[in-house]
Amino acid sequence: MIFLDNASTTQVYDDTLEVYCKYSKELFFNPSAPYKCANDIKSTIDKATKDILKFLNGEANSKLIYTSCATESNNTVLLNQLNKRYKKILISIGEHSSIYNLMQEVKNKGYEIQTINLTKDGTVDIEDFKNKMDNEVGLVSIMHVSNETGAINPIKELVKIAKSINPNCIFHCDGVQAMCKIKVDLKDLGVDMYTFSGHKIHAPKGIAGLYTKIDIHPYLIGGGQQSSLRAGTENVSGIMALHYAIVNTDIDSNFKKVSELFDYVCTTLSGREGIKINTNNNSSHYIVSISLSGVNGATVVNMLDECGICIGTGSACSTKKAGNTTLNAMGISSSNILGSIRVSFCEKNTIEEVKEFCDKLLEVYDKLKKMLGKK
Amino acid sequence: MIFLDNASTTQVYDDTLEVYCKYSKELFFNPSAPYKCANDIKSTIDKATKDILKFLNGEANSKLIYTSCATESNNTVLLNQLNKRYKKILISIGEHSSIYNLMQEVKNKGYEIQTINLTKDGTVDIEDFKNKMDNEVGLVSIMHVSNETGAINPIKELVKIAKSINPNCIFHCDGVQAMCKIKVDLKDLGVDMYTFSGHKIHAPKGIAGLYTKIDIHPYLIGGGQQSSLRAGTENVSGIMALHYAIVNTDIDSNFKKVSELFDYVCTTLSGREGIKINTNNNSSHYIVSISLSGVNGATVVNMLDECGICIGTGSACSTKKAGNTTLNAMGISSSNILGSIRVSFCEKNTIEEVKEFCDKLLEVYDKLKKMLGKK
Repeated sequence: MIFLDNASTTQVYDDTLEVYCKYSKELFFNPSAPYKCANDIKSTIDKATKDILKFLNGEANSKLIYTSCATESNNTVLLNQLNKRYKKILISIGEHSSIYNLMQEVKNKGYEIQTINLTKDGTVDIEDFKNKMDNEVGLVSIMHVSNETGAINPIKELVKIAKSINPNCIFHCDGVQAMCKIKVDLKDLGVDMYTFSGHKIHAPKGIAGLYTKIDIHPYLIGGGQQSSLRAGTENVSGIMALHYAIVNTDIDSNFKKVSELFDYVCTTLSGREGIKINTNNNSSHYIVSISLSGVNGATVVNMLDECGICIGTGSACSTKKAGNTTLNAMGISSSNILGSIRVSFCEKNTIEEVKEFCDKLLEVYDKLKKMLGKK
Repeated sequence: MIFLDNASTTQVYDDTLEVYCKYSKELFFNPSAPYKCANDIKSTIDKATKDILKFLNGEANSKLIYTSCATESNNTVLLNQLNKRYKKILISIGEHSSIYNLMQEVKNKGYEIQTINLTKDGTVDIEDFKNKMDNEVGLVSIMHVSNETGAINPIKELVKIAKSINPNCIFHCDGVQAMCKIKVDLKDLGVDMYTFSGHKIHAPKGIAGLYTKIDIHPYLIGGGQQSSLRAGTENVSGIMALHYAIVNTDIDSNFKKVSELFDYVCTTLSGREGIKINTNNNSSHYIVSISLSGVNGATVVNMLDECGICIGTGSACSTKKAGNTTLNAMGISSSNILGSIRVSFCEKNTIEEVKEFCDKLLEVYDKLKKMLGKK
């Protein structure tokens, strides 16, 4: 099987699973328990947290909260950090459904949500952001890398603009598709909060992170775990597997590998009749959004599935979202949106795999065009 | 090492970890993804859910929501299922901190919280419950088995009383210390919602369940996962490990094993000068609360830790809670509360281990009494 849907989830590697198993079997203790081996687990987690904050170059005195998924991190930001002084919230139109769908709830609480447009290359439209950002905005949430196209948003610039207009506004960034894929320097970016997830970076499902340099109210309330920032027994095995996956990531080496795959797909497919690459060249290189004019992307996905190739029609999480707001905001025609597929790499994918994918894709596309032409 | 703190957390067994690893490595797909192997995962989870609901004898059309921890399950119930028509909530004074501490939040939202007393045997005082239950009560939350003493509450009877007074009230039961330990028949109990956790039953940390037979509003909002009842990519490995741990539990056989340990500890220690068993004989038999008059329970825990024996001073989650509300409500003297320890078994503990524990405990207690007497 050829798995080219790594933006949806990733395989956990053997060595990461070994760490997971060690903390489930030998070192399974509850960090809150009152004996030494349990205290040791607490210290081990504290050390892991420091390592991750260092990896991300977090601000001094910033905190890292372990959550169960990026959706929980985003919900923590958006439902609990609302500031009654500022009734306006800005998000990009390309946000993941865990931000986008949440907005309906937030609207019901009396907040005004404004969405920022995207430019043709899939990044946030800075001019539109400048126009909509004012001193009534209390919260901005813009993703670092698009889960649909891999486009990298100019977060540092957006933070500067936001803070110059309202220094009190909180800037949150959903970094799920950026984490361990592009260099993330949180001090340099200047964001207040940053979300990331384990299962997108070869760590297990069920563990994620929320970086914050501001005080937050816990989303889960109960015991005093995680310095009272998130109740619930710590998912020790998940945390230690996440830590292992992060600190053992070689971003530069992986980027080189996936760039080769990215380039091959883009070069092979662009210029062909009916095919359009929606992803810009300055993107993360982990994701390619491709439009096949005149056919249904879901059909293409199914036919490639029959050939043993797994790709996405767009974010797996957004399959229930009507249409594709990201591609739509990029000005892509509805026919091209209907015919869109998403390919996403990991560093273990090979050039042979993407060659096979391109060959099969062209075959399938030809076949579909002929079938449709015959009708 | 002798681990007698299984009420705090448990070791994940090898075969359960194998299941976990299988779904992290070979079958790691995102259930929302649009290809067959991902759809298969979705079906596998659906099947697992049916098995668990059958194990618990859940009502027809009831739902099982997978959460990240019992605290999340309890937060889902208590923060999102508040009914503005009924401003009163009843809980027992012995509830776990994830219910007890949450109450402060709920109070701030304008609800009235009433706590039900315990009787001397550690169960909820039915007379007090009858007195406090009225048709203004919208939510009742009472734990099935006490995490401090193992006392089993008469949930079925309490549900009947509650529903006869206000048929619209919702009855939630925190079953963390009951799940897989005593027979849980949800249809018979009549509860509307029931919480349980993976890491207390030899499944991993980071996975838990919330049974509900009523419609609920999701606590995490985002993608449409879990029939839109809980957003966030499903923790597939965690769910499948939880399922494996549950369906492979032999409650009767385990009860027999731990009852032997329970009996040994109670028989060996009761009647000794200064020692009091706080746990009643009709309890779950997985937990023994012991009071050692005149000494500090935390010191006893530390000294046993030095001997390689891990026990608790009470719930690990409640170490930050002032005093011990459960023992206090049972009318235990403050000296006996200060000198209380909690021993909790799993079916893998042996009679040799509890013998060693009893021997060392008596040794340590003698030593401490002598030291204190010399002062």
